[in-house]
Amino acid sequence: MLNVKTPEEVFGIIRDNFHAVGGTELLPLEKVNGRILAEDVRGTEYVPGFDRSSVDGYALRARDSFGCSESIPAILRLESSIEMGLSAAPLAEGCCAYVPTGGMIPEGSDCVAMVEHTERFSEGEVAVLKPVSPGENLVYKGDDCRPGQIIAACGTSLKPQHIGSFASLGIARVPVRSKPVVGVISTGDELIAISETPSEGQVRDVNSYLLSSFCEANGCSVISYGIVRDEEAAIGGILGRAVSECDMVLVSGGSSVGQKDATARLIESYGPLLFHGIAMKPGKPTILGRAGEKPLVGLPGHPGASFFVATLFIKPLIDILLGAVPKEYVLTAVLDEAVPANQGRAAYEGVRLRESGGKLHAMPVRAKSGLVTSLTRSDGYICVPRDTEGFARGSEIPVYIF
Amino acid sequence: MLNVKTPEEVFGIIRDNFHAVGGTELLPLEKVNGRILAEDVRGTEYVPGFDRSSVDGYALRARDSFGCSESIPAILRLESSIEMGLSAAPLAEGCCAYVPTGGMIPEGSDCVAMVEHTERFSEGEVAVLKPVSPGENLVYKGDDCRPGQIIAACGTSLKPQHIGSFASLGIARVPVRSKPVVGVISTGDELIAISETPSEGQVRDVNSYLLSSFCEANGCSVISYGIVRDEEAAIGGILGRAVSECDMVLVSGGSSVGQKDATARLIESYGPLLFHGIAMKPGKPTILGRAGEKPLVGLPGHPGASFFVATLFIKPLIDILLGAVPKEYVLTAVLDEAVPANQGRAAYEGVRLRESGGKLHAMPVRAKSGLVTSLTRSDGYICVPRDTEGFARGSEIPVYIF
Repeated sequence: MLNVKTPEEVFGIIRDNFHAVGGTELLPLEKVNGRILAEDVRGTEYVPGFDRSSVDGYALRARDSFGCSESIPAILRLESSIEMGLSAAPLAEGCCAYVPTGGMIPEGSDCVAMVEHTERFSEGEVAVLKPVSPGENLVYKGDDCRPGQIIAACGTSLKPQHIGSFASLGIARVPVRSKPVVGVISTGDELIAISETPSEGQVRDVNSYLLSSFCEANGCSVISYGIVRDEEAAIGGILGRAVSECDMVLVSGGSSVGQKDATARLIESYGPLLFHGIAMKPGKPTILGRAGEKPLVGLPGHPGASFFVATLFIKPLIDILLGAVPKEYVLTAVLDEAVPANQGRAAYEGVRLRESGGKLHAMPVRAKSGLVTSLTRSDGYICVPRDTEGFARGSEIPVYIF
Repeated sequence: MLNVKTPEEVFGIIRDNFHAVGGTELLPLEKVNGRILAEDVRGTEYVPGFDRSSVDGYALRARDSFGCSESIPAILRLESSIEMGLSAAPLAEGCCAYVPTGGMIPEGSDCVAMVEHTERFSEGEVAVLKPVSPGENLVYKGDDCRPGQIIAACGTSLKPQHIGSFASLGIARVPVRSKPVVGVISTGDELIAISETPSEGQVRDVNSYLLSSFCEANGCSVISYGIVRDEEAAIGGILGRAVSECDMVLVSGGSSVGQKDATARLIESYGPLLFHGIAMKPGKPTILGRAGEKPLVGLPGHPGASFFVATLFIKPLIDILLGAVPKEYVLTAVLDEAVPANQGRAAYEGVRLRESGGKLHAMPVRAKSGLVTSLTRSDGYICVPRDTEGFARGSEIPVYIF
């Protein structure tokens, strides 16, 4: 019995049934690029730890400069020259101190006059040609970070700017999520290894490579179980091993109705079958089950269809297992060719993007659902929802980048 | 003497002065995710190698179904059932053969009737209830790829869909560009290692981590030379080693005017100084030189400024060294707060994005230029060009994602 869901229902089922698995690793700062943060990281100290100049110039009391101008400069006594990395002696009224960019300003001063707005009046005196306001050209202690402030929240995908921020706080080891382990199984009597030459009726095993690289690109470790013949006992044996070794298992293929049922039966033997079929094109014969906390997914054998299922549903499953809070942004593009509706099923179609007249234009890449090479010509995809009439040429529609 | 360029001039200088370096590696297909393709890859055979059904159904001659309907079905003799992975015997007129999704259709047939549009009339006969057109539910030999067709062009950043496509063609080893080696040097008397506790006037070495992780995230190998005191001889020694060991060298810091000049002098000792200063904020004190084919870059010591210089200029430099053809798309967002102009300099500012009413909204993240933690609160950035009056609240402006 098929138990077909819409894509929206599938997203809900995924959210309701799964949660973050696996442990936390404490890795050195130089190894956490692209990893998912496992706890909130908070500031433990003030950054910067002192009031710093943001320019090369003279630290002074702002009120000593009030009213000055090029014709009537404020003449200040040059007390000292501050050296980088050293603290500064307090500054008296009517005095100033040279400070390089990033240098600590002396106690008593409250702003910095840019060197360009001053003149060296005599050996020990500086003429300030323009009034400076309190706080001008300063970075205050704690401006970048204060103790207790959240620097990066649990679930953040770490980027160079987070790594820089952790470095500024002296966080040399970072707690990140362990990579979920995904098992990939390709089934089908027509499949041969990629190194072999197909006879008539045979095709190479694309899905093992496509799905493994997809899961790795999205933050998982992969165990590839290779090609399994389309026999319930053979698939069942490998599936059992994969369920015990992995946090999620993807079984692609099983092309005929009977074989699809076999995959569904096997998946159901581990727990509830959450759905069997998605009202979408391509990707309809997709199955989701649950072995305890572990998603078991049956994907179409056609690589092109499998890729859309991975992009739409395996990606959010991975994010949930990882506890990642993904950030994705949708582009808007002008459709360069009409796209028809697709009676009752959401249709997903690859598009090629180009810029013209300051606008992004999307040209559908016409392809039959099983084809993977056509996807290499697409920059992203569009979705024609199931209850629409399709999109007219010239419509502005959302485009999702691959 | 400063030799200040606009950001546009800098892009031109980068394009004109540098080109792809380094060799090619032949890697196994499972290792090329995210790498840059070093040659055009062309199809060597037809994929699929035979005409395949895209549904479960009956292969037949289309004209045998013309005129049929639910009340007057076309009755065809069921010749055979095609098995996955095997070739099919030719089909006579008035006959059909069961074919599973992905199965090879027999010679003589030119379409497939979906199983849902048929009825098993008797043991050896099938009733077709709906006419089928020639080509319907078929994927033809070569539909996905033909010999000679370019599958992926030199310079492509390889994604799972390329890997799948290569697998379908039996390409088990892929020529990719070697990773350029980038040397990272942090200079400054105020810098301490991230594991140390700063005294007043000291700050931790953020740029080593920020720039290393940035270059690694963008496809480079990194040699980090650590912290060097602000002394021309010391910097010169390390720079010499880095120039001989790396394809590009980044020297950040040198906060005072005198020290900036020292970095510029050292860079100039290897070849032409291409510019000294960019008319932008933050990031003005940026220097670019050339040691033969190798870019030597002086970056601001302030991590926040350094990060913008990396995002804007180091990224395209890396792409050129890699021979990569990058694809980037620009979002449009409604500005939620006015942003002022910035006399004569292009201003770059971090923004936080949110969706509201089907539109993307950008809120500037106000930060002083040296600060890196504020960047972790930004999703991307905007640019206020130097010749504009700034942007009013509510303007629709381009946003670049970090």
